[in-house]
Amino acid sequence: MASGKGEIQVLIDLMARLPGLGPRSARRAVLLMLKKRAQVMAPLAQALAQVALNARDCQVCGNIGEADTCEICADPARTNGEICVVEDVADLWAMERGGAFKGRYHVLGGTLSALDGVGPDELRIPALVARVRDEGASEVILALNATVDGQTTAHYIADALHDTGVAISLLAQGLPVGGELDYLDDGTIGAALRARRRTG
Amino acid sequence: MASGKGEIQVLIDLMARLPGLGPRSARRAVLLMLKKRAQVMAPLAQALAQVALNARDCQVCGNIGEADTCEICADPARTNGEICVVEDVADLWAMERGGAFKGRYHVLGGTLSALDGVGPDELRIPALVARVRDEGASEVILALNATVDGQTTAHYIADALHDTGVAISLLAQGLPVGGELDYLDDGTIGAALRARRRTG
Repeated sequence: MASGKGEIQVLIDLMARLPGLGPRSARRAVLLMLKKRAQVMAPLAQALAQVALNARDCQVCGNIGEADTCEICADPARTNGEICVVEDVADLWAMERGGAFKGRYHVLGGTLSALDGVGPDELRIPALVARVRDEGASEVILALNATVDGQTTAHYIADALHDTGVAISLLAQGLPVGGELDYLDDGTIGAALRARRRTG
Repeated sequence: MASGKGEIQVLIDLMARLPGLGPRSARRAVLLMLKKRAQVMAPLAQALAQVALNARDCQVCGNIGEADTCEICADPARTNGEICVVEDVADLWAMERGGAFKGRYHVLGGTLSALDGVGPDELRIPALVARVRDEGASEVILALNATVDGQTTAHYIADALHDTGVAISLLAQGLPVGGELDYLDDGTIGAALRARRRTG
């Protein structure tokens, strides 16, 4: 371009950094926006500016919302003594989509990792222990990923919470709904077998 | 959500409408932005607001730029009498990436289509004829897609420009660079054979 990088190219380069988009799809997305300036670009620019201005971390649970206390923590109907511990805001959103959990959350912000130098203090684990004591929580549900790091972190948290006397539980492992044995890994089948339930 | 649809959800829904993104990847993109508010979200919000404010159609060629006359039309070095006719701004950008063309463009905004009710007036064809006369253009290159609609439109434009006496050319058809015969369709091979060149 004649005079340095134009505004449109700057926008394309920024869009291309988003996950799921590359240079080619970012260009397509920006072209669509440029063609539908009133219907697509203007509302998106407004929504993005709004969120950029208002988004903040919930001071209680670490969720991202539009106030210092997120909608879930601010909802009195959800103060039922249960705290569900998740690695990440993405996991919290996944739990909420299911709609099965009616309590509140605690977002760790990752998992313990000696290699990456992530210790308990980086993960808001002390804040969790303090919160369990202060709120007099009845149960902590460790909804961590079924990975080695996730399970290591779950063990660590269970130890850290031991003295508080709170009930601690883990998500069940087993067959996913609709899962076919033939397509499942051996680990999952083994876990489902060990956790089998008697009928009747 | 408690109080209607939150701002974050509004943003996700708008992002999900962009080509190449669905609800799932829009959510991932927004989550990344929310986590990297200073590094990713703020610059993107600013770039988008800037483009939404400044983007406009070039009055000469129909390209989208940041002024009433786009950078290409405003560049005196590119006034060489050649006008390259393209369907769409995306095609113009594709031509520019190659960097092989040194003249100026004319964006039609689509192809003729009896089915969709797209006639010459919708396509800036009269503007092209007027421009060729006014600028005393030496050559019009019809860089339209090698589709039925594209070729129909090329024929129509060639007819419309006949009285101006301007030289009219079409992009060559043949093997793409790096193309292997075994993977090419019969039409392309036939076109390459008909347009064969003698060596030496």
